[in-house]
Amino acid sequence: MKIIAVGAEGDIGRAACGELSARHEIIRVGRSSGDIQVDIADPASIEAMYRKVGKVDAVVSTTGEVHFGPLSDFTHEQFMLGLTNKVMGQVNLVLRGLDYVSDGGSFTLTSGVLDRDPIRMGTGAATANGALGGFVVGAAVELPRGLRINVVSPGLLEVSEERYGSFFPGHERVPSARVGRAYAKSVEGVVTGQVIIVE
Amino acid sequence: MKIIAVGAEGDIGRAACGELSARHEIIRVGRSSGDIQVDIADPASIEAMYRKVGKVDAVVSTTGEVHFGPLSDFTHEQFMLGLTNKVMGQVNLVLRGLDYVSDGGSFTLTSGVLDRDPIRMGTGAATANGALGGFVVGAAVELPRGLRINVVSPGLLEVSEERYGSFFPGHERVPSARVGRAYAKSVEGVVTGQVIIVE
Ligand SMILES: NC(=O)c1ccc[n+]([C@@H]2O[C@H](COP(=O)([O-])OP(=O)(O)OC[C@H]3O[C@@H](n4cnc5c(N)ncnc54)[C@H](OP(=O)(O)O)[C@@H]3O)[C@@H](O)[C@H]2O)c1
Ligand SMILES: NC(=O)c1ccc[n+]([C@@H]2O[C@H](COP(=O)([O-])OP(=O)(O)OC[C@H]3O[C@@H](n4cnc5c(N)ncnc54)[C@H](OP(=O)(O)O)[C@@H]3O)[C@@H](O)[C@H]2O)c1
Repeated sequence: MKIIAVGAEGDIGRAACGELSARHEIIRVGRSSGDIQVDIADPASIEAMYRKVGKVDAVVSTTGEVHFGPLSDFTHEQFMLGLTNKVMGQVNLVLRGLDYVSDGGSFTLTSGVLDRDPIRMGTGAATANGALGGFVVGAAVELPRGLRINVVSPGLLEVSEERYGSFFPGHERVPSARVGRAYAKSVEGVVTGQVIIVE
Repeated sequence: MKIIAVGAEGDIGRAACGELSARHEIIRVGRSSGDIQVDIADPASIEAMYRKVGKVDAVVSTTGEVHFGPLSDFTHEQFMLGLTNKVMGQVNLVLRGLDYVSDGGSFTLTSGVLDRDPIRMGTGAATANGALGGFVVGAAVELPRGLRINVVSPGLLEVSEERYGSFFPGHERVPSARVGRAYAKSVEGVVTGQVIIVE
């Protein structure tokens, strides 16, 4: 398959591409890294990305920003970041990508563990993750031409320990190989409308 | 208890207040209806509402707009309505309300069935509902002074049949009395961080 991977050079992106690149052609996309650049916060940039790449068999998104901070300190704007970037960025990869994914193809998005196993300062992330779970349930029943959609929801990755470990006391750390297989399940398997949990 | 009910004159609001008003003092709030007016889309309007009402023991929100439409027709702006109004409107009722709810008090928000039992044209609602589920999970662990937070997620109400029935083929219709009890469970009970399903 020809797969476009947005966020390919990130911790999760490398896990996904590590698994998928063995069997598929990957077009790596990032904000500044990768073969092609996009800003998922800008619908016009997403449109330009798809026009450049043309038809693909699968879209994999492993990106999206959220603000972390104590609940009582959150401003409206900080809270909105998760909704405009992580949620709407990935939603727009789907809405704008509908015409570019071939029959029977798939979309695979990324959320995370915090809407089922919360941490301090994680309410913005929990909200964005929950939204993406709802989105794939709602979208799966309306996708045309046998298209499928899922969201992978990993716990903290082993490779991300140094950046985020202290925020996740006692959470199991997830090996990248397990995370990679979740993306393979979504891209190569049959499920749709699922939150694929990796813990 | 003194309870502020935002959206009190709507279908769900009447169900919640029908149950709660037997035992509590209710301040009814709406966009144009009720004892006091607020626009939940405007954080300054929410702030003004709380200043007018002062201390309360519970905040009940039974409001929030989303756009309904076929997935492939959704514009960025239509999709954002659910996130800015139904999600951020209710999130801001919590963020701005923290200083106004007395020790041991509660927030009770409203989502809906569509993130677990989807319908055509319901992706915007499914996304907003999922976000609110994630929000209460994330927020519950950080609330100070024994405050609690839950979201009630009802199926289509019997009383809303005429307005929305044709969009919900085969979905069970929920009596308002059952819906009212879910709000009582959240306001008068002990649970927190829960999605209280009413079907
Ligand atoms: N790491 C974990 O343990 C973990 C666990 C669960 C969930 N998650 C979630 O998974 C997602 C990715 O996390 P990560 O740790 O892999 O992030 P990361 O290592 O920081 O990588 C982010 C990737 O996304 C790209 N990117 C950033 N902003 C972008 C934008 N506006 N438009 C397009 N591409 C953009 C980056 O490109 P450049 O490098 O070119 O900037 C990079 O390739 C996040 O939403 C995170 O919350 C992470
Ligand atoms: N009805 C159902 O069967 C059902 C089932 C599951 C979930 N839900 C969800 O529950 C929520 C309420 O639904 P509903 O059917 O009860 O709605 P509704 O009958 O249309 O009532 C909405 C209420 O919210 C108020 N309101 C509207 N916009 C507002 C704003 N910007 N600021 C403050 N208040 C505002 C209205 O006040 P005014 O009257 O003064 O305009 C009214 O009191 C919605 O999010 C809906 O998706 C509904």
